[in-house]
Amino acid sequence: MEIHPFNPPIRTLMGPGPSDVHPRVLEALSRPTIGHLDPAFIGMMEEVKVLLQYAFQTDNELTLPVSAPGSAGMETCFVNLIEPGDKVIVCQNGVFGGRMRENVERCGGSAVMVENDWGRAVDPQRVEDALKANPDAQIVAFVHAETSTGAQSDAKSLVGLAHKHDCLTIVDAVTSLGGTPVKVDVWGIDAIYSGTQKCLSCVPGISPVSFNERAQEKIRNRRQKVQSWFMDLNLVMGYWGGGNKRAYHHTAPVNALYALHEALLILREEGLENAWKRHQRNHLALRAGLEAMGLTLIVPEAERLPQLNAVSIPEGIDDAKVRARLLNEYNLEIGAGLGALAGQVWRIGLMGHACRPENILLCVAALEAILADMGAEIKTGEALPAVQKALA
Amino acid sequence: MEIHPFNPPIRTLMGPGPSDVHPRVLEALSRPTIGHLDPAFIGMMEEVKVLLQYAFQTDNELTLPVSAPGSAGMETCFVNLIEPGDKVIVCQNGVFGGRMRENVERCGGSAVMVENDWGRAVDPQRVEDALKANPDAQIVAFVHAETSTGAQSDAKSLVGLAHKHDCLTIVDAVTSLGGTPVKVDVWGIDAIYSGTQKCLSCVPGISPVSFNERAQEKIRNRRQKVQSWFMDLNLVMGYWGGGNKRAYHHTAPVNALYALHEALLILREEGLENAWKRHQRNHLALRAGLEAMGLTLIVPEAERLPQLNAVSIPEGIDDAKVRARLLNEYNLEIGAGLGALAGQVWRIGLMGHACRPENILLCVAALEAILADMGAEIKTGEALPAVQKALA
Repeated sequence: MEIHPFNPPIRTLMGPGPSDVHPRVLEALSRPTIGHLDPAFIGMMEEVKVLLQYAFQTDNELTLPVSAPGSAGMETCFVNLIEPGDKVIVCQNGVFGGRMRENVERCGGSAVMVENDWGRAVDPQRVEDALKANPDAQIVAFVHAETSTGAQSDAKSLVGLAHKHDCLTIVDAVTSLGGTPVKVDVWGIDAIYSGTQKCLSCVPGISPVSFNERAQEKIRNRRQKVQSWFMDLNLVMGYWGGGNKRAYHHTAPVNALYALHEALLILREEGLENAWKRHQRNHLALRAGLEAMGLTLIVPEAERLPQLNAVSIPEGIDDAKVRARLLNEYNLEIGAGLGALAGQVWRIGLMGHACRPENILLCVAALEAILADMGAEIKTGEALPAVQKALA
Repeated sequence: MEIHPFNPPIRTLMGPGPSDVHPRVLEALSRPTIGHLDPAFIGMMEEVKVLLQYAFQTDNELTLPVSAPGSAGMETCFVNLIEPGDKVIVCQNGVFGGRMRENVERCGGSAVMVENDWGRAVDPQRVEDALKANPDAQIVAFVHAETSTGAQSDAKSLVGLAHKHDCLTIVDAVTSLGGTPVKVDVWGIDAIYSGTQKCLSCVPGISPVSFNERAQEKIRNRRQKVQSWFMDLNLVMGYWGGGNKRAYHHTAPVNALYALHEALLILREEGLENAWKRHQRNHLALRAGLEAMGLTLIVPEAERLPQLNAVSIPEGIDDAKVRARLLNEYNLEIGAGLGALAGQVWRIGLMGHACRPENILLCVAALEAILADMGAEIKTGEALPAVQKALA
């Protein structure tokens, strides 16, 4: 088999992630590798921790990047906080709630599912009903920003309910962190995980997590060892939390952490609130363009995530063909529907460095050109002025 | 806290890993990110698989890079192959055998430990005795190249013994792959894991694994689900093995896989046998230099790994001070002892791109200069000619 060095095509990434990586992040990624126990690297790790605390809006000591993708960050939360026999209220309103259930069950816990419509926020009333019906539940788990649908749940209210019923909370913030408010301390979130490849403008492969004192206490008081050696926070803490006396656990992904350091620095330079505003402003512009074409977003306005826009596919239009043409003709990636929404929606991401006016214009223009060419019943000629007006 | 972009010092990495990363690999790492379901990326994944099959010398279909460091590759082997109640013969001759035991126990298995001296190969006779005494054992696990001591075990014989007693084998090849012969198919290894940051000259963070048909059969016939969702090969296979019909599992670390692709390409260009010869030749030169100074390697000659040299620390010499001076004065990293050997040895790596004559000269010269300056009882003036002669 003939194999040559791989030169990737240059894409604009407006799917559900990975999103466009900031050039400064790519540059940082390729700096020379040093040892994972080098004093210079340990100094950088301390900075990553401080920058992550800023991104999560928390003072939690136990805030660190798990050396693997978001799904491993999810699993890190579940394997550490759940012991066999624990009952967990799992809210599902898309694909990732189902994955949470898998995690609970593989830890020997039992999951009480609170089902919500896909494309809607988690209904706090249903969660409260489940809490009342299950006074022995110990944890409430929910997805703050459902990447599969673009719905945002009210994390503050859900955490408040959980605490009222003496439950800890595990929150999926993979798609929300950096794009929409995530306030770990103010909201009282006990355990949270995210990913680097969404609104942080960083390469995929790392999962920032944070645990408050209550969550740590549950981990310290476990009856049995965490089932995963790699994800056991008691061990990971010895490496990340040991100051100058770090115990070797695993070899950190050195260069990926250079990249995360740079990405978080860019976020801090912009300021979290400015980043949130940018995502909201650009979301409104994208929405204006799509609606001017006659396309509709599936999530009700009050529950929409700015950074992930699920758009109904027009009647009679071949989903895969449109995405393939966007990719082949304009190097533009948008996402397919996932799970129950496969074939019904496109997912257009506006995440991190990809969330820029020029990308909105490109996306709306390319979509209009291709849909018109394929004979879709859309309005033409109105989308770009609508985007322009919304951005003004 | 004032935080600036992180510019790492330029080190020469001659510790136990990460080792020096090839400049071509760093350059590949920073190429523009594309989607993990992009057809161009999927094509590259196929090439990575073929290149890994070459590195492992196997035709195993289930050969892929786990999206996390070597310890996660280890755990991937154990969680998939072990079910609660399974008995596993675990050979220990250093730190990593102990970690295998942790893995077995956290999977609900029971570990029968075969203890060997640290710094020695695993003794096949002891393994055979354990197999005879435990006819209900299902798996034999051992470390091919013990990174904590520099000892190499006879993988071919150990696998043969295991098969004679109807056991599957799990082999740790984190430090051996690319540096010393690893012949998965010829030796009949059933499950194997490695790391990218040793003799592959790649950045840390990814763990290549391979499973033969017998191992896959055990996984397919499991009585219960794999306890880890992230590492469940039944799910990972849907992503890596699906050809054009890949099922989304997790977001692959896109850029890290560009790097691995390039690193494996470099290995194929050199040729595995040439890489093995290079490691051996340079090991002999390093050894000549160290011995000319009067230093000794702790592993008996026949059991030595060329790529990881554990050297006794001379009497009265402050271990940490020497390593700190090497780092601060010459930007040279060597490794400390680990576990039972902490404070007793240095570990000098000659791995992948770091395994070059210029690095040997630097290391021997720097060590001689610093040890002489610190008043160690070593012979001076003879090491560099000895290196030169060995390389000639």
